[in-house]
Amino acid sequence: MRTIDWWDDAVRIIDQTRLPEAEVLIDVRDVDELVVHIRSLAVRGAMALGVAGALGMALAATNAERDGGDVDQAIEVAARKLIAARPTAVNLEYGVRAVQRARHEGADGTGVLAAALAVRDEDIRANLAIGDSGASFLDGARRILTHCNAGALAGVEGGTALGVIARLHYRDPLQMVYVCETRPLLQGSRLTAWELARAGIPHRVIVDSAAAGLVLAGEVDAVVVGADRIAANGDVANKVGTVGHALAAKHAGIPFLVAAPESTIDVRTPTGAHIEIELRSEAEVLSVGGVRIAPPTSRALNPAFDVTPATLVTAIVTERRLLRTPQTNPPAPPRTPAPAHHRTRSSS
Amino acid sequence: MRTIDWWDDAVRIIDQTRLPEAEVLIDVRDVDELVVHIRSLAVRGAMALGVAGALGMALAATNAERDGGDVDQAIEVAARKLIAARPTAVNLEYGVRAVQRARHEGADGTGVLAAALAVRDEDIRANLAIGDSGASFLDGARRILTHCNAGALAGVEGGTALGVIARLHYRDPLQMVYVCETRPLLQGSRLTAWELARAGIPHRVIVDSAAAGLVLAGEVDAVVVGADRIAANGDVANKVGTVGHALAAKHAGIPFLVAAPESTIDVRTPTGAHIEIELRSEAEVLSVGGVRIAPPTSRALNPAFDVTPATLVTAIVTERRLLRTPQTNPPAPPRTPAPAHHRTRSSS
Repeated sequence: MRTIDWWDDAVRIIDQTRLPEAEVLIDVRDVDELVVHIRSLAVRGAMALGVAGALGMALAATNAERDGGDVDQAIEVAARKLIAARPTAVNLEYGVRAVQRARHEGADGTGVLAAALAVRDEDIRANLAIGDSGASFLDGARRILTHCNAGALAGVEGGTALGVIARLHYRDPLQMVYVCETRPLLQGSRLTAWELARAGIPHRVIVDSAAAGLVLAGEVDAVVVGADRIAANGDVANKVGTVGHALAAKHAGIPFLVAAPESTIDVRTPTGAHIEIELRSEAEVLSVGGVRIAPPTSRALNPAFDVTPATLVTAIVTERRLLRTPQTNPPAPPRTPAPAHHRTRSSS
Repeated sequence: MRTIDWWDDAVRIIDQTRLPEAEVLIDVRDVDELVVHIRSLAVRGAMALGVAGALGMALAATNAERDGGDVDQAIEVAARKLIAARPTAVNLEYGVRAVQRARHEGADGTGVLAAALAVRDEDIRANLAIGDSGASFLDGARRILTHCNAGALAGVEGGTALGVIARLHYRDPLQMVYVCETRPLLQGSRLTAWELARAGIPHRVIVDSAAAGLVLAGEVDAVVVGADRIAANGDVANKVGTVGHALAAKHAGIPFLVAAPESTIDVRTPTGAHIEIELRSEAEVLSVGGVRIAPPTSRALNPAFDVTPATLVTAIVTERRLLRTPQTNPPAPPRTPAPAHHRTRSSS
């Protein structure tokens, strides 16, 4: 499954705002329409946005060429509109600039499309490399825990953490993927469970706080997560809840693997202590589905991320390398299959 | 605030099924009506159910005496009905039997009421003792994290973990109580936040998975939780998510205190490995407020409890003693007040 692709002279996206209730594919045929979908988060995730930028540029060039318009002008207008759609998304601009550069270097319509598809393929290749390398590192692990959505939906195809999981599964069917629902926005139950269901990988959704108990009870062989930013010392900022899973993994002696593209490693940030934690709306915690769940006078604190110290990370896998962090847990040895998961402890 | 009490010849309860939206007091005037409220969980929690049983017996005796009926017969009928309302609730039966015994030993209507009120007072005294002892143990802690609801709503007045928190606050106002929302049933945001708001104790609701990040960032001085069952070796079964907080506390070197009545210690259970973990309905995880949040084919795993090994517990406080467990963290020293909690990390 590709969350965004070039299809029949259009940009085909899966509308992520409709998941998991409905699986809606949209064929986007002009740049203005694509901008609307980028703004509404129908397409989201750093890597996918880079591809959206590149394919949007190809759309502008292709349309102009077909209609006998001015291709150069169309490309410059598209570049401005696309970058303005999510001005802080560096990957979006990266994708736009890559195609713009190809045009400046003399590419015709076909060459522009080729440059855009190269951005897409680069993303897919990176995800495949991460999946392959991560799966080799976790060889033998059969029961995996993951958090939030570091899947194809955040990229183009495969995903980072979910790329590792999928690759493990295709080498030797996994026994179980425990999907943390990921409060408050439930990307785990909404998006990751949807991707796993679609891929036919056995999984169970759990509340985030059930993870530690399962890990300590010996029900999990490895934890795999993505990353939002990795400091120079290996500290990892990722979706809130990640560090709790790392603590449990450390206590249980199972590997905690971070899967992310090289671009996530920010050498200008020395340690996790230098990463500012975004605080999001209190309403995300105090209400669910528009219904207030807390007393009217109670407030919330809603950090979007947490920082996992490098000492709790077994390894970081990128498309280029596998970084072992200072203090590591050994990879999980192959285990004999555990009994069915209808209870976490046996009664006496 | 008392969740259940004797008031104007009636059993007055606060309807917990309506919280936090509405604060509804119900004056229950006969045993059949009380049974309905016990069944609907309008009154819940081990200790509160014991008091409900005792006061229900007093209600039967008082009504029979007023109407010129047969007090002995009324008491025996009430005993059967009350115990059958929640047959597995040992405390309910305990409260019923205490009053029944008083009658068998010759108590008149007034004596029966006195026996029932003694059960209530015993519960209140135990909660006060737990609060006092726990607060002394945590002396100096100003920022507390708690999970689920171990408050007055689970007892009669004060509560166990919340009793400790309230006592700390009344000695020296607390800076902040972090209330884990406690998915899937949200007893933290629904009940604990309500109790804290009512008591005027500063608090913020957080998603359960935000706890570890706050603890590791140095934002929490101590963790206090209740317990559902404590094994002979000090392993603690409590609401799912508890062990994750214990791991974070251990890593950060802050105390992790379990507050529970003596009756929670089950010497017939040697270790936590002998405690069967109840698996509850998958729908609690897959739907919120009746709305499905996961794909239709995805399943959930919903353990209601987890087991915190004794080695992660700093101490257990009961109404009679303070048990230090084998490996302990030191109590938190008094700290200088931290800056306002609008961010968990400073940017560089």
